[in-house]
Amino acid sequence: MTRSSEHERIKKLRSLFASSQTDGLLLSIGDDAAVLAPGEHPLVWSIDAAVEGTHFRRDLMSLEDAGYRATMAALSDLAAMGASPMGVLSSLVLPRTLTDDELEAIARGQRDAAALCGTVVIGGNLARGDAISITTAVLGRAERPLTRSGARATDRLWLSGDLGWAALGLALLEEKREADSEHAVRAFRRPRARIAEGLAAVRAGATAAIDVSDGAAADAFHVASESALTIVLDEAALADDELGELAASIGRPVLDLILAGGEDYALLCAAPASATLEGFRPIGELVAGSPQVLLRERTGTTRPISAPGFDHFGL
Amino acid sequence: MTRSSEHERIKKLRSLFASSQTDGLLLSIGDDAAVLAPGEHPLVWSIDAAVEGTHFRRDLMSLEDAGYRATMAALSDLAAMGASPMGVLSSLVLPRTLTDDELEAIARGQRDAAALCGTVVIGGNLARGDAISITTAVLGRAERPLTRSGARATDRLWLSGDLGWAALGLALLEEKREADSEHAVRAFRRPRARIAEGLAAVRAGATAAIDVSDGAAADAFHVASESALTIVLDEAALADDELGELAASIGRPVLDLILAGGEDYALLCAAPASATLEGFRPIGELVAGSPQVLLRERTGTTRPISAPGFDHFGL
Repeated sequence: MTRSSEHERIKKLRSLFASSQTDGLLLSIGDDAAVLAPGEHPLVWSIDAAVEGTHFRRDLMSLEDAGYRATMAALSDLAAMGASPMGVLSSLVLPRTLTDDELEAIARGQRDAAALCGTVVIGGNLARGDAISITTAVLGRAERPLTRSGARATDRLWLSGDLGWAALGLALLEEKREADSEHAVRAFRRPRARIAEGLAAVRAGATAAIDVSDGAAADAFHVASESALTIVLDEAALADDELGELAASIGRPVLDLILAGGEDYALLCAAPASATLEGFRPIGELVAGSPQVLLRERTGTTRPISAPGFDHFGL
Repeated sequence: MTRSSEHERIKKLRSLFASSQTDGLLLSIGDDAAVLAPGEHPLVWSIDAAVEGTHFRRDLMSLEDAGYRATMAALSDLAAMGASPMGVLSSLVLPRTLTDDELEAIARGQRDAAALCGTVVIGGNLARGDAISITTAVLGRAERPLTRSGARATDRLWLSGDLGWAALGLALLEEKREADSEHAVRAFRRPRARIAEGLAAVRAGATAAIDVSDGAAADAFHVASESALTIVLDEAALADDELGELAASIGRPVLDLILAGGEDYALLCAAPASATLEGFRPIGELVAGSPQVLLRERTGTTRPISAPGFDHFGL
C-alpha cells in the first residue's frame, strides 16, 4: 500500500514508459515538455478525458483497463483523421489514497495501448483530486487528414470494426452476467484504436471519416452534417446474428445497441463505391439531401434515425 | 442559469475561440482533432492540469482567472523550452451544476491568456465530473529547445520576472487582505507565461531553462540536477524591499516567499556571463560540484537550500 512522493512516482513512470521508443522523439519525460522532430506532413492533435464515475467505474473494469481504454479512446481520434501517432501525453488526477500499485496499473494500461498503436507515452503530469481522471493528449501526422466534411454524394459509407458489442459488454457487466460473452466484455474494456485502418482509408481514397464513440447514428450524423449530405444506413448490412441473440437475452433491441451503443471505436468512412478498403465493409451510402441519417429497413422502407435536434433518437 | 447541451456548449465555445486566428492552423474545433501545418523546427509539447480544490479555489479567484491561470501555467512550459506556441487544447471536467455563464467565464480566461501569448485555443473536450478541472495541452516549435540539462559550469543563472509575489498574493487572499497589494493578488491570479523572454534567451545563447512553478529553489535544483552542477543563488540579487515589507506584515520570511513561493511563472535560465539577455537579470551562478542549490547570504556565508531528498527545504 505504498504511496510515494510525486517525485518518486514520476521516476517510476519514467522507467515504465521508457521501455519502448519511437521515431522522431528527441526528448521524453523529465523536462518542461517533450520534444519531437518535425516532419513534412500536417500535424493532427487531440485531447480526451476519462473521469471515474462518468466514463469508467472501478467495479466494472480494472484500473489497467481504465488506462488502456482512455488511451485507446484518444488514439481513436487520430485513427479517424487518418493519422499515425507520434506520441501520447498523460495527465492524471489521482486521489490521495491511490497506491503506487494502482498508479502503476493505470500506467501499464496506457503503455500497452500506446504500444499496440505503435507509439509511446512521452510525458505527462500528476495532480491531486477527489476522483481519478485520465486525460490523454495525442499527436500524430497525416499525409492527408480525413475530416468529417469531405464526403461526396456518390460515396459509400464503410465500416471497420463491430458495432454494439461494447454497449452489450457494459450491459452484461452491470447485470453481473459477464460470463455470457467474454467477447462483449473485452470490446467494452479493451477497445482498439483503428490506426492501421485509418491509414488504409487514406490510401484507398476515403473522403471523410469519424470514429464511433457516441453511437453509429450520432457519429454518422456528424459526417452528414459537416458534409451537407444525407446518409442512408442499410439494416441488412448492419445485421449481427450473434449480437442479436445476446441483445434479446438482456431485453434490448439489437438495433439500439448497434446504432446508439457507442464506445466501440469502430471507424466509419466515406469513400467511392469502387474503392478497395482493406478492413472495411460497406454499410450504407451518401446521397444528396438535407443533413440526416436514414435507416433502410429490410422491408425497403426508409425512416429517419438522426437529424438536428435528435438528442436521443427513438428506436 | 442556463445549462445547454454539450452540443450547444461546443458551438458556443467554437464561436468564442474562433474570434482569433493563428498561422499554420489548418483545421480547428469541430472535427476529431485539430490539424496544424508542420514546420522545420522541433515540436515542443506539454500538458498541465488545474483542479478545483487543489490548484485553485473559487473563493480566491474567479472562474475567468482560473481559466486564464491554467492556460498560462501550461504555456509557461513552452516559454521554459524557448518555444513559440502553435496552439492550445483544453479539456474541461465540469460539474452538472455549472452554468453556461460560468463555462463562458473559464473560456474567456483561456482565450485571453492564449491571445496574450500570440496563440489560440484550437480544440478540446468537455466531460462531466464532481469538481472543475482544466487540463491544457500546448504545442509549440523551438529552433533550439532549451532543456534543463545543458547548463555549463561557467554560466550565470538569470531570472526574468519577480519571485514570491504570487505566494504573497495567495497569502493575502487567504487572510482577506487583498487590498494590501493589488500587485500581489494579480501576480497570483493573472501570471504571465514568458514566451517572448524564452525566445530571447534562445537567441542570446542560453544553455538551459526552467519556469518557476514549484518555487525558485526547487526549480533551480532541477537544472542543477539535470546539468550535474551546483547552483549558487545570490541573496543580494534576489532582494526585493517592497516584498520584504509585505512579507513582514503577514509574518512570513521574505526569503521563504522568494525561494519556495512558486507559481510566479518567472523564467530561470543559464547563460554565459557575457550574454545579453533582454528582460533577465543575473541572480547567481553555476559551478562544478554535486547537484545542489546553495544560497550565498549577504554576509558571504554559503548554505545549502535544496538537494536530493529535500522535499521541503527548511528556511
